[in-house]
Amino acid sequence: MALALSLGRRGQGNTWPNPAVGCVLVREGRIVGRGWTQPGGRPHAEPMALRQAGPLARGATAYVSLEPCSHYGQTPPCAKALIEAGVARVVAPFADLDPRVEGRGFAMLREAGIEVATGLMTGEAARDLEGFFLNRAQGRPRITLKLALSLDGKIATATGESQWITGPEARREVHAMRMRHDAVMVGAGTARIDDPSLTVRGLGAKRQPVRVVVSRRIDLPLLGTLARSAREVPVWICHGRDADGKLVSAWKELGATLIPCALQGRQLDILSVMQGLGSHGLTRVFCEGGGALAATLLGADLVDELIVMSAGVLLGAEGRPGLGAMGIDKLSEAPRLTLAEERRIGPDMMTRWTRPTA
Amino acid sequence: MALALSLGRRGQGNTWPNPAVGCVLVREGRIVGRGWTQPGGRPHAEPMALRQAGPLARGATAYVSLEPCSHYGQTPPCAKALIEAGVARVVAPFADLDPRVEGRGFAMLREAGIEVATGLMTGEAARDLEGFFLNRAQGRPRITLKLALSLDGKIATATGESQWITGPEARREVHAMRMRHDAVMVGAGTARIDDPSLTVRGLGAKRQPVRVVVSRRIDLPLLGTLARSAREVPVWICHGRDADGKLVSAWKELGATLIPCALQGRQLDILSVMQGLGSHGLTRVFCEGGGALAATLLGADLVDELIVMSAGVLLGAEGRPGLGAMGIDKLSEAPRLTLAEERRIGPDMMTRWTRPTA
Repeated sequence: MALALSLGRRGQGNTWPNPAVGCVLVREGRIVGRGWTQPGGRPHAEPMALRQAGPLARGATAYVSLEPCSHYGQTPPCAKALIEAGVARVVAPFADLDPRVEGRGFAMLREAGIEVATGLMTGEAARDLEGFFLNRAQGRPRITLKLALSLDGKIATATGESQWITGPEARREVHAMRMRHDAVMVGAGTARIDDPSLTVRGLGAKRQPVRVVVSRRIDLPLLGTLARSAREVPVWICHGRDADGKLVSAWKELGATLIPCALQGRQLDILSVMQGLGSHGLTRVFCEGGGALAATLLGADLVDELIVMSAGVLLGAEGRPGLGAMGIDKLSEAPRLTLAEERRIGPDMMTRWTRPTA
Repeated sequence: MALALSLGRRGQGNTWPNPAVGCVLVREGRIVGRGWTQPGGRPHAEPMALRQAGPLARGATAYVSLEPCSHYGQTPPCAKALIEAGVARVVAPFADLDPRVEGRGFAMLREAGIEVATGLMTGEAARDLEGFFLNRAQGRPRITLKLALSLDGKIATATGESQWITGPEARREVHAMRMRHDAVMVGAGTARIDDPSLTVRGLGAKRQPVRVVVSRRIDLPLLGTLARSAREVPVWICHGRDADGKLVSAWKELGATLIPCALQGRQLDILSVMQGLGSHGLTRVFCEGGGALAATLLGADLVDELIVMSAGVLLGAEGRPGLGAMGIDKLSEAPRLTLAEERRIGPDMMTRWTRPTA
């Protein structure tokens, strides 16, 4: 099952709107097939593993990181494929939350006389598939927020100089993280100031994550890097319903996808932004700032994982803060996260924090 | 030698103005004596180990973390004691920098026919004795700066609430760190706002570190915790030469030691403060803020080690910064430190950063 989960993670960032699932077929103690959800979400993990196993699938045990699907979509149901291949036993952590499946895959298998076992490695599987489940249950993607900070929490000097705070190893790790997400998201300020490309570079990525910019007024440079490359790598703009129609048209012409969102007072309603991204199929979003968007996400309790890259540099109180204003008076109101991982990356320190489980 | 160094570290914080040295006597592969500099700096490590070994010291090898002393102070020279005990061989990392010793201990031993070897574990020994050497070479103590911060570099909410950002485990670790230093130092703002006791608690400390407050105008509460306890645990105040004479007298009467320092413009000259502490014998000082003093020390390149305790909490840009203004425009001007250690402490993350060696 650990191998199935690990294979499943290979698809992260590439399978949306489908979950990134892994499948291992074991017969008489030997692995006879391995598969994972392919880019674009199809084929699913099970047919990949079955194809590899061929006739050896007969009598095998299939370890799958999620309940096999039971519905006819663009491909026939995986449960049916497992039955036809003569698999003897299916082990999966839990049932799929997708209303088109929800236990029907298991039922189909049992009806065909296949033994079904669940409950194995549910915690790890739930973490791996969290984005897919959040999309199904709350209509929003899972959010990873990344902050690359000086030791005193700054991202630039008072004059704005910010390249580079962290080292090349940390930047490379950030590209690897982008690759495991469906989309990379920034606020309008970052898009204007840094003019970033937000692509995965240097890792041989075959599929680029969607670039999402959150900007109420679509206040973005029409000649910037994102605008120029919108036809090669998708650019989605979450904007207010009150944004200038001419700007909407201009960006549509450039090839961007425009997602109108509700307002809350004078700001974009962040929940509406999340619903917009969820309804467009995103399951895993990697937010890289800026400080205002990061503060809004944290304040709305929408950050499922926080990555802090800390560089051994100190910029002082006048430096530009990595996190915007949060309006917190009492410590008890402040978002608290749990340390999940700590790792040295080159000269920098990476810490990973997740929502407390309690 | 590793054992001798480790024994030597037991004295850290307790032996100033003397170095914290360790000594191990080995005869025929067996440890026959162990010693370390005792509280107050005497007896030295060698007589402690010799006393334990008794007649077994004859023909033994003495591993000492610093050159044995050669001068008559309040105790006879350790080199002489080693000779009289009939030690056959002395191994030490390097010569003492103290002008009263500077190789004369080794010379005395060699003249008596004792074999002397040096060069073993010099890096580690130099780190352990850095405070003593800095005092001898530059007239200033070694500075450890501790910052306990939220993930975004804050120490309190906008309204000032700060108790507690880090957990009890991290606070306990801070007490253990205080114990390994000769003095705990804070700025006047911290002394006023937090009214701290700055003592080592809960660890059975027999000797408390000196409490140092840096305050140009001696702007400190005369009825505060420090004032009330100045007779039990030393309080030293580094103040401007222009401070109010009445305040100087008042604090002297409370039992404090007053150290007048030079000014640089309208501020205390931090180098003068360091020289003042050095001339009063301090070798290892643990600075716990506030932000202004921390920024001044970092700006003057006086921080030899930085401890960051990071709590998994986010306070936002209006929170009170843990580090004051540094006047940095360019990233290249910003102090850069090297990651020396990372460790989880309860729910918090501790990282230790040192001056780059290059």
